[in-house]
Amino acid sequence: MRGPFAPAYLVGDQSNVLPTDTQKNTAFAFAKSVGVDTIENYGLALARHFVTDVEPGPTAAGPGASRSDVTAVRSGIEGARIEIEEYAWERAVVDGAEHDHTWLRTGQEVRTAAVTVDATGEYVIGGLKDLTILKSTGSEFAGFLKDEYTTLPETHDRVMATALSAKWRFEGTEVAWDAVYAKAKAIMVREFATLQSLALQQTLWHMGRAVIEEIPSIVEVRLVAPNKHHFVVDLSPFGLENPGEVFIAADRPYGLIEAQVLRDDAPPAHDAWLFSAGLA
Amino acid sequence: MRGPFAPAYLVGDQSNVLPTDTQKNTAFAFAKSVGVDTIENYGLALARHFVTDVEPGPTAAGPGASRSDVTAVRSGIEGARIEIEEYAWERAVVDGAEHDHTWLRTGQEVRTAAVTVDATGEYVIGGLKDLTILKSTGSEFAGFLKDEYTTLPETHDRVMATALSAKWRFEGTEVAWDAVYAKAKAIMVREFATLQSLALQQTLWHMGRAVIEEIPSIVEVRLVAPNKHHFVVDLSPFGLENPGEVFIAADRPYGLIEAQVLRDDAPPAHDAWLFSAGLA
Amino acid sequence: MRGPFAPAYLVGDQSNVLPTDTQKNTAFAFAKSVGVDTIENYGLALARHFVTDVEPGPTAAGPGASRSDVTAVRSGIEGARIEIEEYAWERAVVDGAEHDHTWLRTGQEVRTAAVTVDATGEYVIGGLKDLTILKSTGSEFAGFLKDEYTTLPETHDRVMATALSAKWRFEGTEVAWDAVYAKAKAIMVREFATLQSLALQQTLWHMGRAVIEEIPSIVEVRLVAPNKHHFVVDLSPFGLENPGEVFIAADRPYGLIEAQVLRDDAPPAHDAWLFSAGLA
Amino acid sequence: MRGPFAPAYLVGDQSNVLPTDTQKNTAFAFAKSVGVDTIENYGLALARHFVTDVEPGPTAAGPGASRSDVTAVRSGIEGARIEIEEYAWERAVVDGAEHDHTWLRTGQEVRTAAVTVDATGEYVIGGLKDLTILKSTGSEFAGFLKDEYTTLPETHDRVMATALSAKWRFEGTEVAWDAVYAKAKAIMVREFATLQSLALQQTLWHMGRAVIEEIPSIVEVRLVAPNKHHFVVDLSPFGLENPGEVFIAADRPYGLIEAQVLRDDAPPAHDAWLFSAGLA
Repeated sequence: MRGPFAPAYLVGDQSNVLPTDTQKNTAFAFAKSVGVDTIENYGLALARHFVTDVEPGPTAAGPGASRSDVTAVRSGIEGARIEIEEYAWERAVVDGAEHDHTWLRTGQEVRTAAVTVDATGEYVIGGLKDLTILKSTGSEFAGFLKDEYTTLPETHDRVMATALSAKWRFEGTEVAWDAVYAKAKAIMVREFATLQSLALQQTLWHMGRAVIEEIPSIVEVRLVAPNKHHFVVDLSPFGLENPGEVFIAADRPYGLIEAQVLRDDAPPAHDAWLFSAGLA
Repeated sequence: MRGPFAPAYLVGDQSNVLPTDTQKNTAFAFAKSVGVDTIENYGLALARHFVTDVEPGPTAAGPGASRSDVTAVRSGIEGARIEIEEYAWERAVVDGAEHDHTWLRTGQEVRTAAVTVDATGEYVIGGLKDLTILKSTGSEFAGFLKDEYTTLPETHDRVMATALSAKWRFEGTEVAWDAVYAKAKAIMVREFATLQSLALQQTLWHMGRAVIEEIPSIVEVRLVAPNKHHFVVDLSPFGLENPGEVFIAADRPYGLIEAQVLRDDAPPAHDAWLFSAGLA
Repeated sequence: MRGPFAPAYLVGDQSNVLPTDTQKNTAFAFAKSVGVDTIENYGLALARHFVTDVEPGPTAAGPGASRSDVTAVRSGIEGARIEIEEYAWERAVVDGAEHDHTWLRTGQEVRTAAVTVDATGEYVIGGLKDLTILKSTGSEFAGFLKDEYTTLPETHDRVMATALSAKWRFEGTEVAWDAVYAKAKAIMVREFATLQSLALQQTLWHMGRAVIEEIPSIVEVRLVAPNKHHFVVDLSPFGLENPGEVFIAADRPYGLIEAQVLRDDAPPAHDAWLFSAGLA
Repeated sequence: MRGPFAPAYLVGDQSNVLPTDTQKNTAFAFAKSVGVDTIENYGLALARHFVTDVEPGPTAAGPGASRSDVTAVRSGIEGARIEIEEYAWERAVVDGAEHDHTWLRTGQEVRTAAVTVDATGEYVIGGLKDLTILKSTGSEFAGFLKDEYTTLPETHDRVMATALSAKWRFEGTEVAWDAVYAKAKAIMVREFATLQSLALQQTLWHMGRAVIEEIPSIVEVRLVAPNKHHFVVDLSPFGLENPGEVFIAADRPYGLIEAQVLRDDAPPAHDAWLFSAGLA
C-alpha cells in the first residue's frame, strides 16, 4: 500500500492504516466473492478495491502532507500492489482416468503475478519462478575475457541448468491470462532448448526477445537465472574416462545471470515498485 | 558402514576407516563403470563393493573386538548401507515433440532407496518422499475420543492433504525396480483417491495393505504423512457463506501420522538399520 | 501415542483416538496451568496426563487386540512420547543494562527433550541440535584405510567443523534439568576444544564419554555430526601461498559421523521409540 | 558487473565478459592478499579491482554502444557491485576462559555489505539481516482504519517480534566499519526496546531516525521487518484465563512492514543498484 502513512511512521497515528489483518480478511473474502479464475484478475480486483473502495481515514489529507502537518492529512490509499504465487496441481490418474477429486502437485515452477493499481493506471506483471530446466548438450562457454585470476578452461560442450525466474510486463489488462502464461512459458522453454547457447546471458536474452516478439501484449521481460554448475568429475585417478557422463551438481558458489528485454516502442516501467515491492 | 571401527572412536586409529572422501570417489566411479540404470541396482553394486572388495586394514580383527583388545582387531567392512535419492526429470516438449536434450524437473516427489549388505544378506528398501497429494472431498473425521481439552468439531467432509513419505521393503533383489516403483506409487495414489477416508490413519494403512497384497516382492510398507490441515475460513463476518470453498492451508502445528503394514508371513526387519541409518 | 488404535487403522473407528487437535489444546493449556519451567518437566507433565488422565474410549480393550476382534478392544492410551524444542533468547542490552522486556535470539543451537511415559516407566532424553562449532586447528586425519578409490591426502592440521546434534538419556526424572543441560553442553564443548582430534569419530566418542563420566544421571549419549568440510583453496595459480588461511566451506557431499556411548552398568534403551518417534 | 556486455547477450560474444569463475577466484585470492579485516573494506578492494585493473576485452568500446554497433564496442568493466554476508562467531569458553582455537556461531543475525564502484564514485551500504528480536510488552496497535473487512480488535499490550533486516548507506568510505556496525545495531535495539510502540511502522522509522541522528557517516536507513504475530491462545474453553502468557507464534500470513529514512541534506541514492542488485 502507498498512501498518507506518514503519521503512522512519525507519531504512531494509525488512522489511515488499513491493518494487514484486514488485508488478509479481504483476500479471503474476495477469493469467495470474486473467485480466482486467474491470479492476474484476482489481483486486479483486490488492488482496485483497496484503492477505490476503502474510505479515507479521519486524518487523511493527501500525498503532499509533510512532517509539519501530519495531523491534517486527509485521503485514502493511493496505490496498492498485490503479489500472488500460484502452485500448480494436476488431477491424479487412477486406473487410467483422471480422478474426480484427487490432486498431485505438478512440476517445480510457481506462477507469479504482481498487480499495481494507482492514480496513473493499472499494471500487471506476470511471471514464474523456480522452473528447473537443464540441457545436457548444446551449450558452450568460450572466448571470454581472461585475466590473471582466470583458470576456467573454455568448453564447447557443457551441461547448462538453472532454476529460472521470469517476470513479464503487460500493456493493458484485457489479456487471456492463462493462454498467455502457457505461451510465454512454452516460448522460453523452446528458446532454451533450441538455441545453441554461447552463454547463459545470450540464452536469457533470446528467451525474452522471443516472448516479446511473439506475444503482443507483453512489452518487457526480466529474467534471473542462477547458473547451476554441473562439473565433470575427474575419474582418471581410477582409470576411467568420463566423456561428459558423470557430473557433480555444485551448490555454491554460482553465477547469477540476469537479463532485461524491453520492446523498442514500449515505455519503461515508470516505477520500480511495479516489479518489486521491497525497499531493498 | 559397520565394522571394526572401535579403535577409530577410542584412540583415533583410522587404519580400518575408509574415508568418506573415498566413499564419494567410489560413488562417482561406479556411476560411470556400473551405471545408474536404477538406484536400487546402483546401491546394491556400491554396497557389495564396500563389503566384498575393500581389503581389511592392518589392525582389523573382528566384530567381537572389545575395548581391551582394540589394537588387535583384524577384518574389513562388515556392513554397508547406501541411501540414494533420485530426482525426476521429463523431456521438455518443444513444438509438440519431446526434445532431444532438454529436461524439466517433474513433480514434487523424490524416489528413494536404502540398500544394506552385510553377512546376513542383502536388503533393499524402496520408497518415495514429498509426494504432495490432496483430496478435496471424500474425507471425514468423526467419532473420535473426547476429553476436557477437545474442541474440534466432527466433520464428514473435509480437505485431506499431505506430503507423503513411504518406504517399502523387498524380499529378494531380483526385482523389476522401475516397474515396481511405478506400480507401488499408482496403488497408493489409487487408494488415497478412492477410499472414503475416515481418518488419515485408515487411509495410510489401506495404502500400505494394497501395496503388499498386489506386489508379491514387497513384504512391508511404512508410511509417514503430516496432516496438512486446510481450515475453512469463516467469512460470516463479511456476510458471505463459505461452503468448503475458501481454505487457509496452515503450516503449524500439524499431526504427524504414521503407519506400518507387515505381511503376515514376512519376517520382521531384523535390524532397524535397514530403514534408518541414524542413531537417533 | 501408543494404544489400541488398530480399529482406527483397519476400519476407521476413531473411538480410541484422541485427536491431534486435542493434543495441541492440551499443550497450550498445560503451558498455562503447569508452566514451562523446563521443557523436561513440561514434557513429563504432558506425557503423564495423556497416559493417566485420558479416559478409555468406548471400544478400547487392550494391546493384544488382533485383527479379528477389533470391535472389542477396550483401554486407553498406553504410551505417550513428547518431543519439544526450545529456542534460546537472551535479554537485549540497552545502555549497558539488560532490558526489562526486550529479547534477542541467541546462538544457533536448539535445546531438545523427548519424554516417554508408558507402563514400564518414565524416560527422559535431553539434547541439543544445530550447535555450530569449529576448531581452526588441533585436528588431524591420517593413517586411514586406502584403496584404489582413495585420493584424499593425509593431514595433520585441518579445520574441523560441524553442526552438532546430541541426545542424552537420563536414569530417573529427579534431575536439575537446567544445570545438567548447561553442564553437558559445557563438557562437550570442552572436549571438542581440548582433545587433539585424530578423527571426528574419536572426538564425538570422547565428548560422549566425558558427559557420562561427569554427570551421574546420564547413562547414554548419542551424537550425530555432519563433517562440514573446509577445503584449503589452491591459490598457487595466482602466485599466492595459502598456509591454511583461505578455505571454501563446502555444502555437499559430506560425511555424517555418528557415535553412541553407553555406560557399562546401564541398561540399553528398551525401546527405540525413546530416542526417535518415526517409524523410519 | 556493468559494462559493454551487449554482445554477450545479443550474439553470444564473451570477449568482454569476465567469467563468474574468475570472479570467484579473485574473491579467494583477495581474501589472502588483501585480507578481510572488515567486509566493507574487502568489498571495496574487490570492486575497485574489477573496475580498475581488468583490461578491456578486444571488442569493448564504451557504454554508448548500441544494438547496431555491437561488434565495435571497446572498453572494460564500468561498474562493480559486491554483496557480502558475514557470519558471526565467538570464542568457545572452556573452564571459564576463551579458548584459543575453538569457535561457536553466535546469534542469528548476519552482517551484510553491498559495495558499488563505478565512474561516479564509491558507495557502501552496511547492514544486517535476520536479527530476531521480540518485546513482550510495550507494544500497542489501535486507532487504525476500519472497513467492512476489519475484525482485528484493538490492543494496548501485545507481543511484537520480527526478524529485522536493515541497510544503511554511508557517505564516504573512510569509516570505522566495525565500530559503526556495533553502534548502529545497538541504537536500533535500544529504540526497539525503549520506544512505546504504537505500530511496527513507527518503531522502524524511529530506529532509522536514531541511527541517522547519532551516526554522522550514515545518511539513509532502510528497514524491512516481517510482523511475526504472536496470538494469545484462547484457553477459556478449558476454564483457564490467559492474561498474555501463552501465545501461538504464527508462521503465515504476516504483514511485511518497511521503512526508509533519509537525512534531509543527503542526496537520494542515485541508482537503485546501490541497494539491490536484482533486476526483479
